[in-house]
Amino acid sequence: MLEKYQKLIAVYLEKFIADNYGNNSFKSIEYILRLKAKRIRPSLLLMSADLFGGDFSKYINQALAIELFHNFTLLHDDIMDKAPLRRGKASVHTKWDINTAILSGDFLYAYSLQCMYKDAGDKLSEIMYVFNKTSIEICEGQSLDMQFEERKEISTDEYIKMISLKTAVLLACSLKIGSIVTSANDIDKQAIYNFGLYLGIAFQMKDDVLDIYAEDDFGKRMGGDILENKKTILYVLAYKYGDDSQKNILSNNSFKDEDIRISQVVSIYNKLEILHKSDSLIDKYYNLALCEIDKLSLARKQKDKLYQFSEHIFNRKI
Amino acid sequence: MLEKYQKLIAVYLEKFIADNYGNNSFKSIEYILRLKAKRIRPSLLLMSADLFGGDFSKYINQALAIELFHNFTLLHDDIMDKAPLRRGKASVHTKWDINTAILSGDFLYAYSLQCMYKDAGDKLSEIMYVFNKTSIEICEGQSLDMQFEERKEISTDEYIKMISLKTAVLLACSLKIGSIVTSANDIDKQAIYNFGLYLGIAFQMKDDVLDIYAEDDFGKRMGGDILENKKTILYVLAYKYGDDSQKNILSNNSFKDEDIRISQVVSIYNKLEILHKSDSLIDKYYNLALCEIDKLSLARKQKDKLYQFSEHIFNRKI
Repeated sequence: MLEKYQKLIAVYLEKFIADNYGNNSFKSIEYILRLKAKRIRPSLLLMSADLFGGDFSKYINQALAIELFHNFTLLHDDIMDKAPLRRGKASVHTKWDINTAILSGDFLYAYSLQCMYKDAGDKLSEIMYVFNKTSIEICEGQSLDMQFEERKEISTDEYIKMISLKTAVLLACSLKIGSIVTSANDIDKQAIYNFGLYLGIAFQMKDDVLDIYAEDDFGKRMGGDILENKKTILYVLAYKYGDDSQKNILSNNSFKDEDIRISQVVSIYNKLEILHKSDSLIDKYYNLALCEIDKLSLARKQKDKLYQFSEHIFNRKI
Repeated sequence: MLEKYQKLIAVYLEKFIADNYGNNSFKSIEYILRLKAKRIRPSLLLMSADLFGGDFSKYINQALAIELFHNFTLLHDDIMDKAPLRRGKASVHTKWDINTAILSGDFLYAYSLQCMYKDAGDKLSEIMYVFNKTSIEICEGQSLDMQFEERKEISTDEYIKMISLKTAVLLACSLKIGSIVTSANDIDKQAIYNFGLYLGIAFQMKDDVLDIYAEDDFGKRMGGDILENKKTILYVLAYKYGDDSQKNILSNNSFKDEDIRISQVVSIYNKLEILHKSDSLIDKYYNLALCEIDKLSLARKQKDKLYQFSEHIFNRKI
C-alpha cells in the first residue's frame, strides 16, 4: 500500500547519501540508512499529504527529514539499550564504536532539521512547532523506558504513556506534517495526528505480542524481549494479574538457559491469558484510531484508504 | 562588558530549569547548566542585537537556545573525549553514566530548537537556515577533531579548519542571529558573522596557548592538552618545525611521569619558539576580525564597543 511512497523515499535517500559522500563520518550514517527498512514514518507523511490533496512528491524533504530523525533515535537508543543488532545486522556502536554512534546520531538530527527546512515555505513555523514538540517527547519516552528498566511494577497507564512518547508521537507527527504542508483544516490536522497516535500505540503493543506469539519470523529473535527483560505489554499485564510467585519469576531475570527462561515466562503468560488481555487493549486503541478517521473531512474514497492501511498493517479485517 | 547580557541569561536559565523541574531526566541537565560559565555565546547574540539597535531582551529565547545547544555539544564531546572534568567539576558521564549524558544531550538539542522557535516570528526561516548549517558544521568539527587524534601530522590549514568548525562557527552564528532578529542588512550580517568566525579562531588558538603559557589558573590543569595528546596549535606548529627527533617525542604520548612529559614537550616548544609563532597566527586572525568591524554600517560608538570587546577578551591593547 505504501509502495509508491517507499520508492520515492528510496530514491531520495540514495541522493542524500550521494550528496554527502566523501564526508569522513558518513560511512556509519550510510550504513544505517542502507539497512533494509519499511520507511513507515516518511511514507505516512507522504500518504497524508497525498490524501489531503497535495502533490506528495513536493514534500519529499520533510519525509526524508522524518526518516533521518528516526535513524538518529535508533543510533542513540541502541547504545543506551546495549543492542547488538539493528534490523538483523550489527548496530553502529557494535560495528564501529560508541563515539561513532553518538556523533553519527547527532549528525543525523542536524541533517534532519536541514531537510525539514527545505521548501517548507510559509509552513515552516507550524512544522517546526510539532516537530520540536515531538522530538522532546521522544526523549521523554526514552527516559521513561530507561527508568522502567529499574522497576518491577509498571502500570498499564505508565506503559501506554511510555510507548506513546517513545513510538507513537513520531507516527502522529509524520501524518500531521503531511496535513500541514497541504493546508488541511485544524480539525483534520488534529484527527490525523490522533489517528497516528492511537494506531502507533496499538502497533507497539502488537510488536510486543509478536515477539512471543508471531507465526513467522520478523527478523527478530523470538522471545528476545524476555531475555532483555523489557517492559512489554505482556510483562506489564502478567505482573498485574500474576500471584506473588509468578511476579517473582517475571521480575527475576537471572537465568542460565535462554530457552528455559523463555518457556518459563511464556507459560505464565499463557496461564494468565495475557495474549487475550493484550489483544483487547490493542483492539481498544485500534478502534480509537478508526474513530479518528470518521472525524476527517475527507471523501469516502480517501477515508477508505486509511481504513485499508490500518487493516493492512494490522493484518486483520475490521 | 557582557555583564548585562550575562545577568539576563542567568535569570532565564533559572526560569528554564524551574519550568522543567520534576522531569526525571532533568537532574543532569540542571547540573551542567548550573556549572559556572561565562555564557559567551548567548551574550554575543544579545550584544549583536543590542548593537544593531534592537531591544536585546526580546531575543532572550534565541540566546538561551544557543546556550542549550552549546551544552548539548559539551555533553557529547566530553563522552567522546573521555573528559573526566567539565568546568572543573565531574562531567555528566562521570557523575552519572554515558547513557544519561547521551540522552541529556539529545534533550538539550531538542529544547534548544524549541527555544530558537519561540517569538522568532518572520525571522524563523533565516534563523533556522544559519543554525542548522552551523549544527552540521559543528558535528564536522568534532569529527575532524576525532580523526586528528589518530594522526601525527596536521597542517596548519587543517587545524584552522577544525577549530573553525568545532568552535568558531557557533560564535559567528550567535552574532549573526543577533543581526538577523534586528533586521540588519546583508553586508552587516556577513561582516558580523565573519568577525565572530575570525575572533573565534584566534580565541581557540589563544586557549591552546594558555594551557601551557597562562600566567594564572583558568580552572584548567596546566599542560592538560599535552597529557591528552591534543592537536593544539602549539603541537601543530612544533610538529611542523621540529626535527625528526623532536617530532618523535611530540607524537609518542607514552609517558610515566606527567610533569616530566609536560616539561619535555614545553622545552621543545620553547626551543622552536612556538609561542612566538602561535602569537603571530593569533594576531593574524585577530586583525582579520577587526577588519570585519570596519565593514559594518554601525556608528563609531557602536563599533568601538566591538573593538573594546575584542581587546577585553584578548586582554590586549589594539
